[in-house]
Amino acid sequence: MAAAGAGASGPAAETAAATFRRVYGTLKAELLKDPSFDFNDDAIQWLESMLDYNVLGGKLNRGLAVVESYKILKAASATEPSEEELFLACILGWGIEWLQAYFLVLDDIMDNSQTRRGKPCWFRLPKVGLIAINDGLVLRSQISRIFRRYFRGKSYYVDLLDLFNETTSGQLLDQITTNEGRKDLNKYRRIVEYKTAYYSFYLPVACALLLFGESLDNYVQVKHILVEMGVYFQSQDDYLDCFGEPEIIGKIGSDIEDFKCSWLFVQAIERADEKQKGVLFENYGKSDPACVAKVKDLYNELHLQRVFSEYERESYEKLISAIEAQPNEAVRAVLKSFLHKIYKRSK
Amino acid sequence: MAAAGAGASGPAAETAAATFRRVYGTLKAELLKDPSFDFNDDAIQWLESMLDYNVLGGKLNRGLAVVESYKILKAASATEPSEEELFLACILGWGIEWLQAYFLVLDDIMDNSQTRRGKPCWFRLPKVGLIAINDGLVLRSQISRIFRRYFRGKSYYVDLLDLFNETTSGQLLDQITTNEGRKDLNKYRRIVEYKTAYYSFYLPVACALLLFGESLDNYVQVKHILVEMGVYFQSQDDYLDCFGEPEIIGKIGSDIEDFKCSWLFVQAIERADEKQKGVLFENYGKSDPACVAKVKDLYNELHLQRVFSEYERESYEKLISAIEAQPNEAVRAVLKSFLHKIYKRSK
Repeated sequence: MAAAGAGASGPAAETAAATFRRVYGTLKAELLKDPSFDFNDDAIQWLESMLDYNVLGGKLNRGLAVVESYKILKAASATEPSEEELFLACILGWGIEWLQAYFLVLDDIMDNSQTRRGKPCWFRLPKVGLIAINDGLVLRSQISRIFRRYFRGKSYYVDLLDLFNETTSGQLLDQITTNEGRKDLNKYRRIVEYKTAYYSFYLPVACALLLFGESLDNYVQVKHILVEMGVYFQSQDDYLDCFGEPEIIGKIGSDIEDFKCSWLFVQAIERADEKQKGVLFENYGKSDPACVAKVKDLYNELHLQRVFSEYERESYEKLISAIEAQPNEAVRAVLKSFLHKIYKRSK
Repeated sequence: MAAAGAGASGPAAETAAATFRRVYGTLKAELLKDPSFDFNDDAIQWLESMLDYNVLGGKLNRGLAVVESYKILKAASATEPSEEELFLACILGWGIEWLQAYFLVLDDIMDNSQTRRGKPCWFRLPKVGLIAINDGLVLRSQISRIFRRYFRGKSYYVDLLDLFNETTSGQLLDQITTNEGRKDLNKYRRIVEYKTAYYSFYLPVACALLLFGESLDNYVQVKHILVEMGVYFQSQDDYLDCFGEPEIIGKIGSDIEDFKCSWLFVQAIERADEKQKGVLFENYGKSDPACVAKVKDLYNELHLQRVFSEYERESYEKLISAIEAQPNEAVRAVLKSFLHKIYKRSK
């Protein structure tokens, strides 16, 4: 570890994000020189470019959330995390980022997507193609190797493996359940539940709790709260895709054009009369700007901006009271930090 | 469990294979009614047909080998396995079969294969396509769910998860290392090492040892022996593909046509002079029967049948002396049963 602890402040201190990135370098180097596989130079080069392309490039919010959550847990018990603990928190965070990369690489193939994070999808690169399937699986198996290296002796090792296995199962099986769900667009909640909520919200906190020495069996309520928070987060995403400022959210929304099972679409269906439903089905999922405009007009006619504000307020209130009911102060602090980061966000 | 114990004999007793198949039914039923996912009827139907298509249909040798190995281990200590123990041995065996299905479903997509086990590859079915990627991943994650259900409380649970993770990593990373290895056909040994040896030979015995209460750290030599046996087994496969009787091996070999990195090809390269190498490279990998005949002629010219007999004898002797050096009688018995099943096989 570098001389300056990640928790230290002052001009010489490394930011949490910089520490986090440094740990990526360590993990990558270890994977490339794994003694179980004497990789030749070509294999090393392939692995390295595959990792940099797919594991990096996102905002790393999920991974960093492990470190932040862990710091909050420690702060509430008036202790500073040691360098070793911060290092392990970073590794757990990278485990989530690796998991995310695994899902994205394979999802993009299945969805036949073009771009991801502003670049062509990995399988779209001419040198890659369907070998990307193997790369995706390698990403998943590297998580096991990393965890084995750093956590095998820890009391929570089994729980950690189970947690990641459970997340993987959920994500995959959800795909099966929602194969037709995507067509009738009726299962909005279940689709987002795992897709975003479980591994973006619950997983970082669960990792921090494990590292803090807690048994996850005692945090079933916390899980529910975080999954609810994730559902709320996803609805914001959907709302901003249509009503957000492109300059602020950093992209031009296209959920309407892409026939996405958006929160807004689901709300519109629920509120529309027969005639309005006709307009919706006629114009949704078409790239013609006139069709998009008609859908947006309908959203306004149905006052979906107001509906969303009310939903947002209600969600917040429910979440806050569920958080306040938590007996553990440190856990309340973690949950509030998550909630305040997303409440009324405009990007 | 049924009334008749799987270990019992007599006309009423169930064969080991029948018990094994019955356990498949149990595992499948549990996965389909998994309370964590309230699958709708369509999803259940999909999962069921996906499992039957991909997990069944093979010879189940790997899975049954767990049960047989476990019985031998028990017999050497003069005890009968309990029904519960046999049931758990079957579950571990199915874990290997599930793993095999996972590899095959995804390998077939990456290799763009047409058929598998006499049927179209799963992804070739019109209703499936690239959703097969998700199905493959579901198969892998189901192993974790099954093991969690039956082994979570066992002392060897972590070792079991690590064992399967290690096998998966090996298989996948091997693919990367051998991307060009396939071109120069020079890495025959490394390719087959994981592909066949590790998970067909070592994995069943390792599962049986874990169930028997042993630590795998004490069986590194056993692992080496089984991997060697797997390498030998694969060379037999390659030999029989060319020189076996199609009626006996149950298929018409096509390694020459398919430009396979066969044991025979590697031996031929090592023994051929420049002119013979020219003939080999000119005719290998072509479906024209005249080309195939020229390759076979060359194999005969190089006396590869005799070379193989000698290799077979040497392999056997090396394996037997390595087995005899094992201190544990039960383990020796397991290893010998494997060896005698494959030595001088003609199918």
